[in-house]
Amino acid sequence: MTEDIIFPDRNSLDEIEEGDLLRPKFDEKGLIPCIVQDVENREILMFAYMNKTALQSSIRTGLAHFYSRSRKKQWKKGEQSGNFQRIVSLQIDCDQDCILIKVKIEGGASCHLGYRSCFFRELGDVSEKMDFKLNFIEREKVFNPEDVYKKNN
Amino acid sequence: MTEDIIFPDRNSLDEIEEGDLLRPKFDEKGLIPCIVQDVENREILMFAYMNKTALQSSIRTGLAHFYSRSRKKQWKKGEQSGNFQRIVSLQIDCDQDCILIKVKIEGGASCHLGYRSCFFRELGDVSEKMDFKLNFIEREKVFNPEDVYKKNN
Repeated sequence: MTEDIIFPDRNSLDEIEEGDLLRPKFDEKGLIPCIVQDVENREILMFAYMNKTALQSSIRTGLAHFYSRSRKKQWKKGEQSGNFQRIVSLQIDCDQDCILIKVKIEGGASCHLGYRSCFFRELGDVSEKMDFKLNFIEREKVFNPEDVYKKNN
Repeated sequence: MTEDIIFPDRNSLDEIEEGDLLRPKFDEKGLIPCIVQDVENREILMFAYMNKTALQSSIRTGLAHFYSRSRKKQWKKGEQSGNFQRIVSLQIDCDQDCILIKVKIEGGASCHLGYRSCFFRELGDVSEKMDFKLNFIEREKVFNPEDVYKKNN
């Protein structure tokens, strides 16, 4: 259990945009989006949401914690798979409504399907064509999700 | 004006997660989050939202278009500042509810405050300390926003 941390108030636009204190904006569901980037090769690994306690746990422990909208609870990345994400830096954007964490990953994969990155597919063609065809830019899974996740999770 | 494009249906979880067609999920407000990454140095530049027509315009024209939640309308990145973002690749995540575009930027800046990246501040300390102090990791603005944006925009 962690006591409730009070993040600094979002007083003025100037303090939010040009100030030097973390004043995160949680949306009407109490969530803030978070981009996860590999600190070594700068690949984008994941995109997820944090609630206040997940952000607090992430900062305190240095391990990425998120909030699952489907399971309606906080989770520590890697708690089932072992693929923990160690936070090297935590950045926030201009209006402080999006977080970017740069992480070292343990286990080599970040996607629940077993891929290194959740963004393992790319649109074949950005053009008038609009055929919506995706190419797989990762050829092989790092792990087999059936081996790693228990059923009904 | 563009006619309404029908993206492929999100039929089954298997088609969404393992399939080879773009089946984007727009949330209850009709939006999908989008991460913008510099294709050259892999820096994260921005985070914004697209609605269906902004995604369609982005794919068709190869220039990043977003939806402004505050102004309640689609906008082409750079339409005021000249800092256009040319899309080199468009990726989607496992559950197809987040887009990643890798872009070449024109003008050298992506943040409305004049910084190269919107993520120009970093938490000083990821630890028990929790002092919320941010360090500026960009020292100088690329442009002065007052020179670039007209007032009341």
